[in-house]
Amino acid sequence: MAFLDDRYLLSGDTAAELYGQIRDLPIIDAHNHLDVKALVSNAPFPDIWETEAATDHYVWECLRKRGVAEALLTDPEVPNREKWDAMAAVFPDLAGNPTYEWVHLDLKRILGIDELICAENAEGIWEKARAALARPEMRPQALVQRMKVEAMCSTDDPIDSLEFHQALQDTPLAGVVRPTFRPDRAMNVFKHDWPEYVERLEARVNGSFRRIGDLIEALRVTHDYFADHGCVASDHGVEVPFGYDMDEEDANEVFRRARRGEELEDEEVICYMSYVLGEVAEMDARKDWVFQVHIGAVRDMRDLLYDDIGPDSGGDISDHMTDIVEPLIPLLNRMDERLKVVLYNLNPAHTATLAHLTRAFGEKVNLGAAWWLNDSYMGMRRQLEFVGTVDVLMNCAGMVSDSRKLLSYASRHEVFRRTLADVAGALLDRGQVPMAVAERLVRHLAYERPKQLFGL
Amino acid sequence: MAFLDDRYLLSGDTAAELYGQIRDLPIIDAHNHLDVKALVSNAPFPDIWETEAATDHYVWECLRKRGVAEALLTDPEVPNREKWDAMAAVFPDLAGNPTYEWVHLDLKRILGIDELICAENAEGIWEKARAALARPEMRPQALVQRMKVEAMCSTDDPIDSLEFHQALQDTPLAGVVRPTFRPDRAMNVFKHDWPEYVERLEARVNGSFRRIGDLIEALRVTHDYFADHGCVASDHGVEVPFGYDMDEEDANEVFRRARRGEELEDEEVICYMSYVLGEVAEMDARKDWVFQVHIGAVRDMRDLLYDDIGPDSGGDISDHMTDIVEPLIPLLNRMDERLKVVLYNLNPAHTATLAHLTRAFGEKVNLGAAWWLNDSYMGMRRQLEFVGTVDVLMNCAGMVSDSRKLLSYASRHEVFRRTLADVAGALLDRGQVPMAVAERLVRHLAYERPKQLFGL
Amino acid sequence: MAFLDDRYLLSGDTAAELYGQIRDLPIIDAHNHLDVKALVSNAPFPDIWETEAATDHYVWECLRKRGVAEALLTDPEVPNREKWDAMAAVFPDLAGNPTYEWVHLDLKRILGIDELICAENAEGIWEKARAALARPEMRPQALVQRMKVEAMCSTDDPIDSLEFHQALQDTPLAGVVRPTFRPDRAMNVFKHDWPEYVERLEARVNGSFRRIGDLIEALRVTHDYFADHGCVASDHGVEVPFGYDMDEEDANEVFRRARRGEELEDEEVICYMSYVLGEVAEMDARKDWVFQVHIGAVRDMRDLLYDDIGPDSGGDISDHMTDIVEPLIPLLNRMDERLKVVLYNLNPAHTATLAHLTRAFGEKVNLGAAWWLNDSYMGMRRQLEFVGTVDVLMNCAGMVSDSRKLLSYASRHEVFRRTLADVAGALLDRGQVPMAVAERLVRHLAYERPKQLFGL
Repeated sequence: MAFLDDRYLLSGDTAAELYGQIRDLPIIDAHNHLDVKALVSNAPFPDIWETEAATDHYVWECLRKRGVAEALLTDPEVPNREKWDAMAAVFPDLAGNPTYEWVHLDLKRILGIDELICAENAEGIWEKARAALARPEMRPQALVQRMKVEAMCSTDDPIDSLEFHQALQDTPLAGVVRPTFRPDRAMNVFKHDWPEYVERLEARVNGSFRRIGDLIEALRVTHDYFADHGCVASDHGVEVPFGYDMDEEDANEVFRRARRGEELEDEEVICYMSYVLGEVAEMDARKDWVFQVHIGAVRDMRDLLYDDIGPDSGGDISDHMTDIVEPLIPLLNRMDERLKVVLYNLNPAHTATLAHLTRAFGEKVNLGAAWWLNDSYMGMRRQLEFVGTVDVLMNCAGMVSDSRKLLSYASRHEVFRRTLADVAGALLDRGQVPMAVAERLVRHLAYERPKQLFGL
Repeated sequence: MAFLDDRYLLSGDTAAELYGQIRDLPIIDAHNHLDVKALVSNAPFPDIWETEAATDHYVWECLRKRGVAEALLTDPEVPNREKWDAMAAVFPDLAGNPTYEWVHLDLKRILGIDELICAENAEGIWEKARAALARPEMRPQALVQRMKVEAMCSTDDPIDSLEFHQALQDTPLAGVVRPTFRPDRAMNVFKHDWPEYVERLEARVNGSFRRIGDLIEALRVTHDYFADHGCVASDHGVEVPFGYDMDEEDANEVFRRARRGEELEDEEVICYMSYVLGEVAEMDARKDWVFQVHIGAVRDMRDLLYDDIGPDSGGDISDHMTDIVEPLIPLLNRMDERLKVVLYNLNPAHTATLAHLTRAFGEKVNLGAAWWLNDSYMGMRRQLEFVGTVDVLMNCAGMVSDSRKLLSYASRHEVFRRTLADVAGALLDRGQVPMAVAERLVRHLAYERPKQLFGL
Repeated sequence: MAFLDDRYLLSGDTAAELYGQIRDLPIIDAHNHLDVKALVSNAPFPDIWETEAATDHYVWECLRKRGVAEALLTDPEVPNREKWDAMAAVFPDLAGNPTYEWVHLDLKRILGIDELICAENAEGIWEKARAALARPEMRPQALVQRMKVEAMCSTDDPIDSLEFHQALQDTPLAGVVRPTFRPDRAMNVFKHDWPEYVERLEARVNGSFRRIGDLIEALRVTHDYFADHGCVASDHGVEVPFGYDMDEEDANEVFRRARRGEELEDEEVICYMSYVLGEVAEMDARKDWVFQVHIGAVRDMRDLLYDDIGPDSGGDISDHMTDIVEPLIPLLNRMDERLKVVLYNLNPAHTATLAHLTRAFGEKVNLGAAWWLNDSYMGMRRQLEFVGTVDVLMNCAGMVSDSRKLLSYASRHEVFRRTLADVAGALLDRGQVPMAVAERLVRHLAYERPKQLFGL
């Protein structure tokens, strides 16, 4: 089989047939890191570095492993062409990592460049990409349409004005892009910049928070505001999903101590975070939003990166020792039958636990796509193969790109759809499901399920 | 390949050849949840709901995921036909879950109904099943014989009179069905109904327990009684396998406090449970019984179900964070070379640890079948593929159905045998074992090993 | 396919083609348990028991599982022929375990004996092996050359005189065998023989340690001495990789208490071990050695073996609950960009965590081969399949045999190379990489990568 050809990831005729039935379905992408402002401006992408690497720490991490100097990744002073050349020179070494496939898919499927990235081809690809990106159909808004994106949800802070989401309503993308309510900064009371963030939240609502109830009320105001702008989900990036039942008075005491800049005990942090998460869950339940929890990322572990470049630059890991059951069960019980939940799975050592949890908590609690470092072909395949044997595959939440660059949205969904077709094809080939049922299953997970679940 | 046809789960000719050699072997089923009373009464099954869903919370959990109302699952007032129609309507959505295969296997292999369960076929299957179930060869006792069950072990409380096991000795099933000694209720000192249970145990032996030694002695009396009724094994359902070395006096102190209704500390619970488990292990060792430990089930996590319907209704999960090594090692060392042990594996994150443990503790410590939410084709295949690379496959304890419904015993063993043949076929196809050795291996695990290990 | 034939472990033509390109490459084996003294003496192996089982507790553990009496494994009084007969009688039962393949590979590839080990063939194989082992080309030194070992690193204590490594320089193996600095005994302050070991270390440097700094200085002296004898790496066998930042004064206080024979608290042990590990890391960094950490072995768990036979006799396991991230992160940060690290992966439940860690810490931190109970075909395949999707496969450290017997070095590397070719072949067959890139990848990991990384 040839690299990225029609049979890419499809191990047999059955898988290929199933993929054929879903390849052209529109994209519903309920979680990503879209730059909405850039989408509004609709400026053409200048070059291939900008589209493929400038905003994507997945790529940086892989290049660091091959010895590319930090300046050639993240220093704004270094010209993109130099960065691209450094990237191309080591790119063949990335084989096996999904980044190798994603970037080549973007080139081949979107830019029409069917070449292998390497030192010899660096200049040629650079030039061809420049030419391609200059064409009107490669502008951001046109790309979204060309990729058949029917709905996509960005990731936004409660204090965001959503002015760019608003501005998009006057473009051909009206109704396509929605915000997602992600109050991590309000939640992360253990971070040094939490007090400053709370002040910004006060400013956002022209208020002054004397009690935790005031902060919750401010979140409610912004939650309503997000709803007015088409939001259908909240999202929470947590290492441990603290969802203990907490008393408002106890949480308020932590809030007061934190605002005075006092050092908090671990249990105080857990109390505060549990309380706020629970309150957002209540807001979501009232609006029938989807409550998404991205579990298990241990962030900013590499001091060298964090100190020099800051968050979202790499150095993020997961830990098989992350506790999930004990902290999350109280929240699931409290919100049972009232709240739509999606749990995302980063470390494969947590897969069974998460699948057991989503199985146990009925119709509204769903397993999300294999996430982040788990969303390769092999990560997703192992997850899908197992999840269906415990939970019900039809209840899974489908694919989200989680992408940090526009060009890759379609590639991410293509890899998922091919993997899904391959998993379902294997079920068919082993005589575990009949054809008509398998066809329904792949269509459902590729498109209908996220559309229905998120109400898009 | 067609759904559930001859090649079901068999990925090549080698696997098919191996399966042909074991498909007709008798069934040894050392652990299940057989309703012995129903088997004695031998009343015909009234309908398909009764045989497939009425007693099986595996099915309920899957149907809940597809939105079937609780009343249509567990309310005795709702007619079975209504329940069946609700089940059939969503059944195609369960594709990928083993329940989808098990129920269809029962229909096809036992009832001779080769139709897909769905809304359109609900009535037809209902009627055909009624007709089939009315035939004499579909009565419970006849079914056990038809499924070639040579031996099967139910799960019983020490206070059980075993009168139904006794009554079976006057039927064609004489010698086939054996009780298993499962003293979970005596062990679970943390449960609110433990004091009441202890009183029932006192009544069972006409005694009054003043010390923990009296309770142990009562267990010994019932243990002997079980032995007289053909029992060959104990079984223990534990979240954490507490097997610490404990002093009788310390355990006795906990016993006294518990009887007085005092609240226990965690370490007291662990002390008591470790002590009682150790004493049962000693009883088993003296009789050369098999000591089975079902590890890692975190039960009754969903309050909604537990409060309304009670235990064994769903809401059970597992947790990758369950500790196994530290609590279990003392018991394994204390009983080393004296006690036959089978450890069952629920969460795949524990598989390697369990396989390492059974490897390390010699001939008598064995890995059991992938258990509960892990006993699908994929769960068993991944377990078998890995276990043999660490421990010795020939030492594994073989399949137990763990089934909660009679009709599924053969289906569960069929899925195991096909999976086993597929795993062994892959070993052959990769040149890792010679044919004669593979043939011996599959016969051994499918039949001879459990027969020998449990002395059946 | 026939047992161990040309297509052994290769599932398709692509895999076979890739394997053909690496099968004859020289062997770089950066970690094993070579008996250097025996290699110097170059005495012929007396018989098949001596080459295959006498020094290898992998084999003992499997035979114990099949009921072979301890005396027939480890009692020096029992003649080897009796031991071999007992081994042969149960050997077919080991099918599926890699030991079954390794031993047969040694027979077939090295000794030219193409027979299945079983009771009937025991005598025949014994005699043929005796005849084969008597030939000059089967002497230890000749074997190393015949297996094309270009470089191999033994495992040595800091107090080792390295006289045998020195003596090898006057043989045809000059430059091939290198020592590895493994200061576990200096680190393991919790063991009862630590005080005695420290005295031996004092004697080694003609010193008297008054402070921990004196012990560190002694390690530095031996570290230099190892460097003079061609050493390129240290190695550390730890259950938990304690790498906390510790103050010398605190570590010194533990050191003093330990020397006085006082009982240590857990946190004191962690303090001491973290400090010493960190100091060795600094020494390695200064010499640009590779710092190897074998994580997660929980040793000597079976009292029966440990009490009767001692360490390295079996009874070793791993635990999914081993903490890695928290204890190791401080060390990785402190040594970031300064130290070449290889982390070895024993329990598959840790694989993702380790792959995330090596991904996050840049060019110098590498994932080692699947280790010990994880280095079967299935263990290595699952590890390689996953690791590349997170970290970069080209950065993995390649294969180490970890072997405890000379005859198996080539077999271990053969299994790895076939597994690697099969994994890369699958990437090609799924269209995930182009051919030229896959070819480079397999050559790199099979040979060039360890050569380059260890500077061999």
